[in-house]
Amino acid sequence: MESIYRTHPCGELTTAEVGQGVILNGWVQKRRNFGDLIFIDLRDRSGTVQVVCNQAVSEEAAHVADQVRGQYVLAVRGEVIARSEETINPKMKTGRIEVQAEEITILNASKTPPFAVEDEVEVDESIRLKYRYLDLRRPMMQQTLLLRHQAMQATRRFLSEKGFIEVETPMLTKSTPEGARDYLVPSRVHEGQFYALPQSPQIFKQLLMISGMERYFQIVRCFRDEDLRADRQPEFTQIDIEASFLDPDVFQSMMEELVASIFRETIAVEVPRPFPRLTYQEAMERFGSDRPDLRFGMELVDLSPILKETSFKVFASTIAAGGAVKAINVKGQGGWSRKEIDQWGAVAQELGAKGLAWVALKAEGPKGPVAKFLSEQELADVMEAAQAESGDLLFFMADTRKVTAEVLGELRVRLAKALDLIPEGEFRFTWVTDFPLLSYDEEEGRWYAEHHPFTNPREEDIPLLKTDPGKVRAKAYDMVLNGFEIGGGSQRIHRREVQEAMFEALGFTMDEAREQFGFLMEAFEYGAPPHGGIAFGFDRIVMLLAGRSNLRETIAFPKTASASCLMTQAPAPVDDRQLQELHIMRRKQSSTEE
Amino acid sequence: MESIYRTHPCGELTTAEVGQGVILNGWVQKRRNFGDLIFIDLRDRSGTVQVVCNQAVSEEAAHVADQVRGQYVLAVRGEVIARSEETINPKMKTGRIEVQAEEITILNASKTPPFAVEDEVEVDESIRLKYRYLDLRRPMMQQTLLLRHQAMQATRRFLSEKGFIEVETPMLTKSTPEGARDYLVPSRVHEGQFYALPQSPQIFKQLLMISGMERYFQIVRCFRDEDLRADRQPEFTQIDIEASFLDPDVFQSMMEELVASIFRETIAVEVPRPFPRLTYQEAMERFGSDRPDLRFGMELVDLSPILKETSFKVFASTIAAGGAVKAINVKGQGGWSRKEIDQWGAVAQELGAKGLAWVALKAEGPKGPVAKFLSEQELADVMEAAQAESGDLLFFMADTRKVTAEVLGELRVRLAKALDLIPEGEFRFTWVTDFPLLSYDEEEGRWYAEHHPFTNPREEDIPLLKTDPGKVRAKAYDMVLNGFEIGGGSQRIHRREVQEAMFEALGFTMDEAREQFGFLMEAFEYGAPPHGGIAFGFDRIVMLLAGRSNLRETIAFPKTASASCLMTQAPAPVDDRQLQELHIMRRKQSSTEE
Repeated sequence: MESIYRTHPCGELTTAEVGQGVILNGWVQKRRNFGDLIFIDLRDRSGTVQVVCNQAVSEEAAHVADQVRGQYVLAVRGEVIARSEETINPKMKTGRIEVQAEEITILNASKTPPFAVEDEVEVDESIRLKYRYLDLRRPMMQQTLLLRHQAMQATRRFLSEKGFIEVETPMLTKSTPEGARDYLVPSRVHEGQFYALPQSPQIFKQLLMISGMERYFQIVRCFRDEDLRADRQPEFTQIDIEASFLDPDVFQSMMEELVASIFRETIAVEVPRPFPRLTYQEAMERFGSDRPDLRFGMELVDLSPILKETSFKVFASTIAAGGAVKAINVKGQGGWSRKEIDQWGAVAQELGAKGLAWVALKAEGPKGPVAKFLSEQELADVMEAAQAESGDLLFFMADTRKVTAEVLGELRVRLAKALDLIPEGEFRFTWVTDFPLLSYDEEEGRWYAEHHPFTNPREEDIPLLKTDPGKVRAKAYDMVLNGFEIGGGSQRIHRREVQEAMFEALGFTMDEAREQFGFLMEAFEYGAPPHGGIAFGFDRIVMLLAGRSNLRETIAFPKTASASCLMTQAPAPVDDRQLQELHIMRRKQSSTEE
Repeated sequence: MESIYRTHPCGELTTAEVGQGVILNGWVQKRRNFGDLIFIDLRDRSGTVQVVCNQAVSEEAAHVADQVRGQYVLAVRGEVIARSEETINPKMKTGRIEVQAEEITILNASKTPPFAVEDEVEVDESIRLKYRYLDLRRPMMQQTLLLRHQAMQATRRFLSEKGFIEVETPMLTKSTPEGARDYLVPSRVHEGQFYALPQSPQIFKQLLMISGMERYFQIVRCFRDEDLRADRQPEFTQIDIEASFLDPDVFQSMMEELVASIFRETIAVEVPRPFPRLTYQEAMERFGSDRPDLRFGMELVDLSPILKETSFKVFASTIAAGGAVKAINVKGQGGWSRKEIDQWGAVAQELGAKGLAWVALKAEGPKGPVAKFLSEQELADVMEAAQAESGDLLFFMADTRKVTAEVLGELRVRLAKALDLIPEGEFRFTWVTDFPLLSYDEEEGRWYAEHHPFTNPREEDIPLLKTDPGKVRAKAYDMVLNGFEIGGGSQRIHRREVQEAMFEALGFTMDEAREQFGFLMEAFEYGAPPHGGIAFGFDRIVMLLAGRSNLRETIAFPKTASASCLMTQAPAPVDDRQLQELHIMRRKQSSTEE
């Protein structure tokens, strides 16, 4: 072949090319022999096309074709021909044509792969991760990475147009005393000292605001050395954004536009705006979660006002003690067996409930252990509040507001999944706002910043910092999609007197704060503008866009739950010489521990 | 003020806005009192505008204005008014108008900054780095970061349009035995094991080719724990690119287009294409450098053919021994004093020359110690070869080809700088190709890969791998701009028999190679396509675009030559508890070393 390089992508050939000479490059997806004919499905990034090798057309090509195996890499020169009516394959994008081979060059051979390189692969994930380069050859993985690329470029395009400037912040930086566990990097030049990999560029983006950059963004790798759950990675990607001199409402609606443009440019979905806004309190009361899934109802109903004087002692005493009685209405499931109901009771107990009461609204009247303790009026009021009717099943819980919300919130989600109430392909966004600024640590006997100590309290709550810190609401906002928090942000404190009040509430003097937060506190003294921002979990957004259920499916080379890479075998032992240069040594198990 | 948020950027107000009410946000650049009038230069990212506070217009605003100091953050409500003819400031973009203040809110105060926040700052770089957030407030730094942003987006736009997909590769990966020193990250979960931060995504981008991504790019942070020179950073940014099934010539011209589009979209310079191509050998012969600066001439002239039979023994014997006699023509400098000439002789010796001979072509005839040893014919031939004429000065060197090239190459650059021969604002690109594939390590007595062992040799040189490895040319190409290597790449080996020959030349069996390069070698056995790529030094490109002379000026938060951040004080000591969790301890100086 004079040139081995492709003239056309395999997957884009159509009947328009019939009669043309083409060169294709790609991998052998399948080979089938039929007498004098050999058919090869040739696949590249764009898709697959059928190559037909006919002894009568080219003996040479047919001879080479006979040697190829799955995943061989070929250059094929040939002519696009129309398939006869009966051989058209309507399932294949290129199914109306095929390429008649005139010459085939084997660019590379391949061993038999450890699993079939196709979408429906049934193999343990650990094998897929070990041979990730083969796993990524599967069309579904390629499409996910393409979608991820498109989402990144859409983000950058949108933010650039809005005047945001992408600035790269350091990866080798300083360990911070608060927050999650840092990944450390020993310094060779500075003996006994360490860099830390950033958990987020939070401090740097605030410094960029102080330096007058006004609108910053970055799609940036962040690191947390935490015990990993199924949907966490030790390194993850964040869309990091900060702006100065921008009305928070304008900022939030700009972030809605950003997300809408990502959805439009990747999966062609139009996201309705503005997003609904729920306060933290409302979200907890109605959905028992600060990241409510709004794709289905089954909201939590507070029955405390109705039942505060009920003769059912468990309910009345809980309410009297400041707790709550709440219910969820499992629509149309009044016919469940006792066994089914008890299974959900066990789930609730596992989740932390003392018990789960229930009333089944049967045609013959309300059934269930609670039913007989409620007066007719109470039951009528409960049914009205829960919008319940005959055929429904009501689950009740009586506990503190916190436990009630947590348990019923989780139960709501699990019931919806079990009952298949969650519509596919629907995207329901919401903002959750007004998070508590501080939370009290019983053990340490002090208040902690829920987010970080630079989060702005709501103006009208500032006096409460001194009198009732737990009531202070933060100017913080989470963006929630389908039950996932996809972004979290806040307006930051920029006024010194507010910062002082904040530190006072945390039990610091300004001097102590300066000690702990060092150069950032100093920077705040040189003209910090009003500013705020947000960080989006990019991996999770891609996961939701691609309709996958696992972050590992959205990352080219992910790590396992034990933070290993099964392909490269990282982390791995290193030479002693390397450690010596870094002024560290391995700690022997016996030496200081136990 | 009802809203403090800006209606207009300061720097974009023109006479078109005269009569309009505006709100501005920004920093006080300067304040001057003139009787009842106070003038404030208010600066934001877009530029500066003059605010005038007139007692007669607003006593309140004037009162607030009187309290502000440099770098205070203000919100100013007022009216745009035209300046009278005599107060127009033609040096200021907004110099035809000013804003008459009706209300001023101090959004934040500022201490007196440690240096003036303006372009012409005369302060030690260490102070600028310590207060980087103030340094970045200077318009010149803001413009550089904006330019960096534009260069990034132009890169992504161009490559996306050409079908390249941005894929993020891991930061926590595996230490590689070859190459520069790695930054290591101890693992908490895997006792005694370490991640390494990537020196480049080389292995991952080749794996992405094996996985059929076909066109990949990434603007990516890389890490090298090397002793830092003025123009190196421990973390740096690379435009990393790889492609499969693409003719190398097409790829190189695509990369020219990429760079041209970066120059067009950032500094509106049209870069002429195609770039000239020099082989490594030609570059070394003519410019004594593999990254020649083509903005000026003064090429090295090989006089060996002319002088091989000269009676001047030093020259003749050097040539006879396989060395070279080469000269550079310092145009028009025949009148230099003996002292000036000797100074350059000293420079040459410092650079490794045994001596620097010279002939000054004076009107009265050739002068200089060498002149008398050359016959009239030899001198005439030398002058013709060096395109020399009366008034010029010729410097001669006789040594091995390698030393001659190195010394005269460096001398050429220093002479050009000293003589101010290098035109400002000119961009001269070239490719340097056909680098040697291997170099011989005298000490270890073996061949090493110049680039890495996956670099493809030129087809016609493959047989030389067995017979004369030093003659094998690589399919490698560097992109050079104004004497800087801005990008380097190669076509990779994808055929097993070539890879085997390569390893054989390096003294490995395939089994040993598999041992050393592990999973990558295994991956090559599952259908690697023909592929190649390049990596551009992004920081350096930005430096050249911005016309700066130091990489630190192009990075928001750079590190010093000792890899420290003067602002955050990274690296820094950490808690013992943190080290304990990571199964490491500090090595005591006394313990094992000396």
